[in-house]
Amino acid sequence: MRQTFSESTDPSFGPRHVPLIRQAMARQGLDAFLVPHEDEHQNEYLPEANDRLGWATGFTGSAGAAVIFQDKAAIFVDGRYTLQVRDQVDAATFEIRDLVDGGVTAYITTAAAKGQSIGYDPRLHSPDALARLKLAAARAGAELKAVAANPLDEAWGAERPAQPVAPVVPHPIEYAGEESAAKRARLGESLKAAGADAAVITAPASIAWLFNIRGGDVIRSPLPLSQAILRADGTAVLFLDPAKVTPDLPAWLGNEVSLAKPDDLASSLVGLAGKSVLVDPAQSSAWFFETLESAGARTLRAEDPCALPRAAKNAVEIEGTRRAHARDGVALTRFLHWLATEGQNNPPDEITAVRKLEGFREETGLLKDLSFDTIAGAGPNGAIVHYRPTARLNKSAEKGALLLVDSGAQYLDGTTDVTRTVAIGEPSREMAERFTLVLKGHLALAAVRFPAGTTGSALDVLARQALWAHGLDYDHGTGHGVGSYLGVHEGPQRISKSPSAVALKPGMILSNEPGYYKEGGYGIRIENLQVVTEAAPIPGGERPMLGFETLTFAPIDRRLVVRELMTDGELAQLNAYHAKVMDIVGPNAPDDVRAWLELACAPI
Amino acid sequence: MRQTFSESTDPSFGPRHVPLIRQAMARQGLDAFLVPHEDEHQNEYLPEANDRLGWATGFTGSAGAAVIFQDKAAIFVDGRYTLQVRDQVDAATFEIRDLVDGGVTAYITTAAAKGQSIGYDPRLHSPDALARLKLAAARAGAELKAVAANPLDEAWGAERPAQPVAPVVPHPIEYAGEESAAKRARLGESLKAAGADAAVITAPASIAWLFNIRGGDVIRSPLPLSQAILRADGTAVLFLDPAKVTPDLPAWLGNEVSLAKPDDLASSLVGLAGKSVLVDPAQSSAWFFETLESAGARTLRAEDPCALPRAAKNAVEIEGTRRAHARDGVALTRFLHWLATEGQNNPPDEITAVRKLEGFREETGLLKDLSFDTIAGAGPNGAIVHYRPTARLNKSAEKGALLLVDSGAQYLDGTTDVTRTVAIGEPSREMAERFTLVLKGHLALAAVRFPAGTTGSALDVLARQALWAHGLDYDHGTGHGVGSYLGVHEGPQRISKSPSAVALKPGMILSNEPGYYKEGGYGIRIENLQVVTEAAPIPGGERPMLGFETLTFAPIDRRLVVRELMTDGELAQLNAYHAKVMDIVGPNAPDDVRAWLELACAPI
Repeated sequence: MRQTFSESTDPSFGPRHVPLIRQAMARQGLDAFLVPHEDEHQNEYLPEANDRLGWATGFTGSAGAAVIFQDKAAIFVDGRYTLQVRDQVDAATFEIRDLVDGGVTAYITTAAAKGQSIGYDPRLHSPDALARLKLAAARAGAELKAVAANPLDEAWGAERPAQPVAPVVPHPIEYAGEESAAKRARLGESLKAAGADAAVITAPASIAWLFNIRGGDVIRSPLPLSQAILRADGTAVLFLDPAKVTPDLPAWLGNEVSLAKPDDLASSLVGLAGKSVLVDPAQSSAWFFETLESAGARTLRAEDPCALPRAAKNAVEIEGTRRAHARDGVALTRFLHWLATEGQNNPPDEITAVRKLEGFREETGLLKDLSFDTIAGAGPNGAIVHYRPTARLNKSAEKGALLLVDSGAQYLDGTTDVTRTVAIGEPSREMAERFTLVLKGHLALAAVRFPAGTTGSALDVLARQALWAHGLDYDHGTGHGVGSYLGVHEGPQRISKSPSAVALKPGMILSNEPGYYKEGGYGIRIENLQVVTEAAPIPGGERPMLGFETLTFAPIDRRLVVRELMTDGELAQLNAYHAKVMDIVGPNAPDDVRAWLELACAPI
Repeated sequence: MRQTFSESTDPSFGPRHVPLIRQAMARQGLDAFLVPHEDEHQNEYLPEANDRLGWATGFTGSAGAAVIFQDKAAIFVDGRYTLQVRDQVDAATFEIRDLVDGGVTAYITTAAAKGQSIGYDPRLHSPDALARLKLAAARAGAELKAVAANPLDEAWGAERPAQPVAPVVPHPIEYAGEESAAKRARLGESLKAAGADAAVITAPASIAWLFNIRGGDVIRSPLPLSQAILRADGTAVLFLDPAKVTPDLPAWLGNEVSLAKPDDLASSLVGLAGKSVLVDPAQSSAWFFETLESAGARTLRAEDPCALPRAAKNAVEIEGTRRAHARDGVALTRFLHWLATEGQNNPPDEITAVRKLEGFREETGLLKDLSFDTIAGAGPNGAIVHYRPTARLNKSAEKGALLLVDSGAQYLDGTTDVTRTVAIGEPSREMAERFTLVLKGHLALAAVRFPAGTTGSALDVLARQALWAHGLDYDHGTGHGVGSYLGVHEGPQRISKSPSAVALKPGMILSNEPGYYKEGGYGIRIENLQVVTEAAPIPGGERPMLGFETLTFAPIDRRLVVRELMTDGELAQLNAYHAKVMDIVGPNAPDDVRAWLELACAPI
């Protein structure tokens, strides 16, 4: 089994580790120290060795920060994590505060005293975040001080796990669809056009994409933690721990890409003195800007040049993800069949469900990893959006409950992410009505056509309008980008309430996952992945339109659909989807599963 | 008649006026001079005396700019005006270029020569626009030079109309709903909270709102061109030409507001030395920033503090606008009745239609002005979004054509803006189908409920989705804010594709005006005004929702509705709207009009 159900931290972490951190701070003369969630790679997921916030506080959520003074400390999390933080963090050690509405900066302004010295590790903070923190410290009359050695790392000492050194391997052209040399030449031209001599690339997914390589330093995604310098002539230097370099790698990278050690990064940046260097302030920490600028290089702040090309998948990648989704759909359908047969008689607990689903995926013979830890939320656990079942929290899916299962897989040809919500026993009328409202939103977003230039935030309302009309909503985005055998969360495209300037482009893969959550009751989410395509010309139409092609195929629980809440058009759309599930999954499903699938996909 | 059909410029303006401007430029040693559309008040509409771009070029659109060199000149307009500019401007005098994609700045970069001196009037440019222009000049090795006296104004000389001095009068509390003193006290507190000692208020609509006054310096809106300084203690100085001050005004303004002459503005700004002064860079020109900063004041760039409070109307203003719309609806319904009877037998030309409608509005006895020149577009003229009928362009609405009429009125209690599209004779199937798609969008946007925090750009898709599904779209925003006996275009709220950070708040009035335009064929637009309200609680709903209350009542042409393209819900919504038109307009319509209205509003 890949997924585990233990907890890597507990509330004793704060009381045990904060005194050690304070001693290390004192040795450096620091009155306070900033502990962001982000690590040196500014990536969403961290290797255990870099989860400094987790080690200091016990909190394991995907966003947050702490500030540790000698005589007080506070942890900051957003609304998604207000329940989890109280469960994981010792409230006597850390005051628990809200990350938004000022958050850390507002806290520093009032908590710091005149003349105090507040330490920070410049490799862990984005330049924009740092600028705000400096301003806050200045308002309090305190000073922000960059540390050479991170006092938390010193305190962690020998207990700290080693940095991961997973092997970095070629990602064959049959999956990548474009040679690295072609990508580098293309990006080199765009650097020239932007007046840059080189770009610093630090996002692990960008490095994986640019060089057609994959690694395994971060759990659940094949990312190689590393850095690169791409020059405008298309040549590059890749800074990679020699322990990760597999025998075939140098030849795969070719003559235009030289390998260097991570320790050589600083001197290579200094070597860019006099050059114009593109750096993405959202991906690269303040340390890169400071190192380049103090060496006499000009930094150009701009988006990671790999971000958009990586997001808009090529034909080979899209064909691959279709195959990966068809394969994954069989595994998920076997799981749904099991839930609909054995599971209805003997409702499983969450961990059993997670293991069963992982087993079906493993049986494809091509599973490289899960794309994230499966969320299986029975009854009230389904209402906790960022729930992950553990031995302590594990719950049985009782009769009359909903079971929400959000899962995904990493295959060489594609990354999947899918949520189905299943009724165990007989659902209540309210459950079915709200499921239907979520379904209406999901279908509207799947069917929309839109002109070039449309952003994901312009489409978000389509997924919410049916819920809004009933005084309901959900507190998460509607869609995130998804990589091609890369991160299951990928920017810059997204579908959400918050304004976005990123237009959706053909080849971008996004999730479509509206939901509804009744606290203490149940959770509903329906999620498919869909790829932006050029829509077929419409008779009488005057402008080219874009649309979505659905990638995910698995039945949606018909017992939760309230027919009279659906329009004829929505019913036709759902029936057409189920017919396609039958076409794609049916032929590869075992006989008993296919027989059940016929019923599960029958027109409503 | 208020509306005229003559043209205030002609293509001879360029060849006649540019040589005069060049002579004045030469006297100041300038190689080039920048002519923006904006005037000293950075307002959308200009008095004729400030339409410098119109005088220099002949172009009368609402946005644009020109650059005049000694040996060449160029005019820049956006996509809305590409046809109009060719009609109005002499292409031998001005090269015609696109305003977007670099526009003026890109032109300067290549057109200016090293060492040239490019003049600009600092009262006419926003600081952000100016910063971009300075950068462009620097790239060309040229220098941007502020002029003390505008050479265009010198060239214009005695021919230039006088500055308007329309009387400024009190706007009674029965219409304004809140005393100026209360507004000033409220805003003063917000200035203190923002760390400002004072704010410079230059938007004419903000001055009108803040002091509860109305003027008439700008055609079609009761705006007093003036400036004000609001202090954090709620007192203020209003800079107003003494010729505009009516006898009752000083007492109405009270002790806390002192009157000063416009010529005293500069010295009053200098008097703010050492203070923190809030200035809105989108409303106040670079001159304000330069004057304050060189006097030693600190400028705080922030949104005009009147903008949001003005946009969210109070209960008295909303009640007033309901009355104004009911009254205006009777006038418009009489016009639609005339079109449906006499007009069907004897199709009118555009100017006749405009005069007829103005006559009905005049007969209300309460018309203060039109809120803009009525757009009546017959057949292909309806497809020109910014069309205004003139004696030269006037066209008859022939049988089988559509007539698009976009109009509005200024009443003391409210400002209206409404568009109806009417079939003259028998419409084609295509016309009716596309009208129905536009109607579906209009109805979806009217019916939506949404949570607090939702922006207009998040809702825009609702008005477009039916058109998009058929490969169609329209190239203008879906909704603009509307004032309360103020400008018919009012920010900061809007409903459009472009991202907006302004959340819709109860009391904001917006238009809902999707359209469809077939070049050379016909134009369709359906526009009502609607006010944001707190939606009635929904049974089973969990979150408070906002919604819209429709303000505009006049029948929508049933002959253009294709029943089978409408859902049951949309038909019910249209029928309910028409029932309300009958309730509100019917009782105040003449007998023959009411009899017709019964049929026009009958359920479909």
